Amino acid sequence: MTGGPAAASMRTLIQDLETDNIADLATKANALKDVIRLWYGEGDVVTPDFIKNAAAGALAAGRTFYEPDMRGTAELREALSTYQSVLHGTAISENRSSVQPGGMQSLHIAMMLVCDPGQSVAIVEPQWPNIRHIVTLAGGKPVAVPLDWDTQRPTLDLDKLFAACDETTAAICFSSPANPTGWTATRDELAAILAFARERGIWVICDEVYNRLWYGNTRGAPSMLQVAEPEDRVLIVNSFSKAWAMTGWRIGWITHPESVVAKLSAVTQYVNSGTPSFVQVAAATALNEGEGLVSEIRERCRAGLDAAYETLSSAKGVVLPQKPMGGMYAFFRLEGEDDSRAACAKVLEAARVGLAPGFMFGASGRPWLRMCVCRDAAVVRAAGERIAETIGR
Amino acid sequence: MTGGPAAASMRTLIQDLETDNIADLATKANALKDVIRLWYGEGDVVTPDFIKNAAAGALAAGRTFYEPDMRGTAELREALSTYQSVLHGTAISENRSSVQPGGMQSLHIAMMLVCDPGQSVAIVEPQWPNIRHIVTLAGGKPVAVPLDWDTQRPTLDLDKLFAACDETTAAICFSSPANPTGWTATRDELAAILAFARERGIWVICDEVYNRLWYGNTRGAPSMLQVAEPEDRVLIVNSFSKAWAMTGWRIGWITHPESVVAKLSAVTQYVNSGTPSFVQVAAATALNEGEGLVSEIRERCRAGLDAAYETLSSAKGVVLPQKPMGGMYAFFRLEGEDDSRAACAKVLEAARVGLAPGFMFGASGRPWLRMCVCRDAAVVRAAGERIAETIGR
Repeated sequence: MTGGPAAASMRTLIQDLETDNIADLATKANALKDVIRLWYGEGDVVTPDFIKNAAAGALAAGRTFYEPDMRGTAELREALSTYQSVLHGTAISENRSSVQPGGMQSLHIAMMLVCDPGQSVAIVEPQWPNIRHIVTLAGGKPVAVPLDWDTQRPTLDLDKLFAACDETTAAICFSSPANPTGWTATRDELAAILAFARERGIWVICDEVYNRLWYGNTRGAPSMLQVAEPEDRVLIVNSFSKAWAMTGWRIGWITHPESVVAKLSAVTQYVNSGTPSFVQVAAATALNEGEGLVSEIRERCRAGLDAAYETLSSAKGVVLPQKPMGGMYAFFRLEGEDDSRAACAKVLEAARVGLAPGFMFGASGRPWLRMCVCRDAAVVRAAGERIAETIGR
Repeated sequence: MTGGPAAASMRTLIQDLETDNIADLATKANALKDVIRLWYGEGDVVTPDFIKNAAAGALAAGRTFYEPDMRGTAELREALSTYQSVLHGTAISENRSSVQPGGMQSLHIAMMLVCDPGQSVAIVEPQWPNIRHIVTLAGGKPVAVPLDWDTQRPTLDLDKLFAACDETTAAICFSSPANPTGWTATRDELAAILAFARERGIWVICDEVYNRLWYGNTRGAPSMLQVAEPEDRVLIVNSFSKAWAMTGWRIGWITHPESVVAKLSAVTQYVNSGTPSFVQVAAATALNEGEGLVSEIRERCRAGLDAAYETLSSAKGVVLPQKPMGGMYAFFRLEGEDDSRAACAKVLEAARVGLAPGFMFGASGRPWLRMCVCRDAAVVRAAGERIAETIGR
């Protein structure tokens, strides 16, 4: 007989994999009344009827079988081609987009394409923790490159990023606009990162899930697709979750060089074997008819961000960077409080506001707190007021 | 500048990953008229309305958000607990099932839990090729253990299986009833494999996706769940695809020791972040109200298998093993034809019947052909007749 729990003999590679997550906080919150839950990266808008009806229509029409092309239906890949080509002002052929069941899965598959066991990936931090965990799952080593906070806003020191890359580096990876900081690479920064990656022959993986939640005077944030050539070693990950209010649908896509199609098809088959047809029909409808929805979500986030900044800036001892130009988060810290786990617990118990603790986003995120602002501005305002009242103005 | 296509610099681990698949044949078939397509492991029954309506109802009710527990809703995990406990006659707690977006993904995640880079996995072959490919993706080495065909049916030589395991072995993996052979482990064989795995401290991964497509006088084929203790190092993978006619929905589950829950939650989060709510609602309805459907699909496969055997056995030079007791395939070969790729092309062009070539299922599958029989018996009969007419009676 074996003796002891089975878990003791799982692969060594995941022995140290962090299992800590926001769900623990959420469980604690269940015991409390009247909590404003702003920890998840998810808005409060139900997916609109025009998208739900597309899925229901596809189901009614009997689209309950495998799709022959596991990288996505022709209809959705064509919609993605048109959408991206128009948005970024450069032709992106339909064969350069591969549909995946979620942005998370797109990142996992991207890592499965480029990072060998023993290689490393340079990750701009604070960063959505799942990115470093998929590097671990691929057998690689995440190398954190912290943003600088010496001015009133986060900035990326490109020399520091490049110095973090060595002969073991498979890829540079970052989100832009970033989760959780809102940091957004400029077009010049994207070009500089690409030039360095070309020189070294390494990959760049860009999480552009927040591209459309952008408060500048362009339709989206600067994108790696605007500077890269089709065969550059660049994988851009996107998702319908945030900008189209479709978190629960689990659908996203990778934009990639055409030359990787054969291997990407194979990896897609062996990891997930495709995305449900009826979910793809809904996503194509979202792309083709959803610009009004995207604007609505963006304005909701913008108003939420304004409400968070107005209320939090009135509180004593809240360290609030310049308002970010993109993303769906306010990212701040409490003066003198370096332990975000403790700070989150305090805010949860005293102010009944649920925030995500910054330590989850890497060591450099440790003192910070993340607040999702994709809510009715009144709700975000109430949350900010509660925090301000609790810690004093 | 980089020069050359980006694909040239993908991770070495996937350089040899096979990209060959049935889709190539399917493309070739598009040029032909009136092809009976029996290559995919998928029936022709549209998911019934009671399941589709459950999904549509969940969508209408606004279930478009993340589920808090990425391992599945409480409702579905309770339904899985009841279903498995009753079916196998042993209590399986709700915390031992984890929902995943598909059986494929369940297997991938199982491998991500147990196989470290450099380890090996013993795989009973001929086998669904995706199983060996996920071992490769995990950085492991698949070791084939061919079934014996010296009698009229495939048998597993346990000594050969155990001899294939050494100090690098992380797990033994097989499907039962098997895809493509229909080979099914007896309860005694399952117990012997488990005893060996306990002694060596290695894992057993069982793909039981065809458990209910069983033509014996029990409700399902023998299951590892009937012999294993809760904390045995056993991961059982299942799916709604085959027995509930839900291939396109991408939903399955892993049954596992409770002690792996923390790591399994983490890996689930980092690989896929969960399965859509409305798909889970549909799956729970399938489990709770779908026994009639399962019987219908099983009888459809049984009649299809009978039709395949009646027609193929009349053909000259068809090597037909004993009729399998489980699964949804007829597995046969043409006398004197060792190259299944050529044989499939010939059958496709001459008989206009699409079969899956056995070489995909491992070296020992090379001469064989797989025919999916989950169709109207008349369709399978027509396919068998065409083959018999083409090669002669």
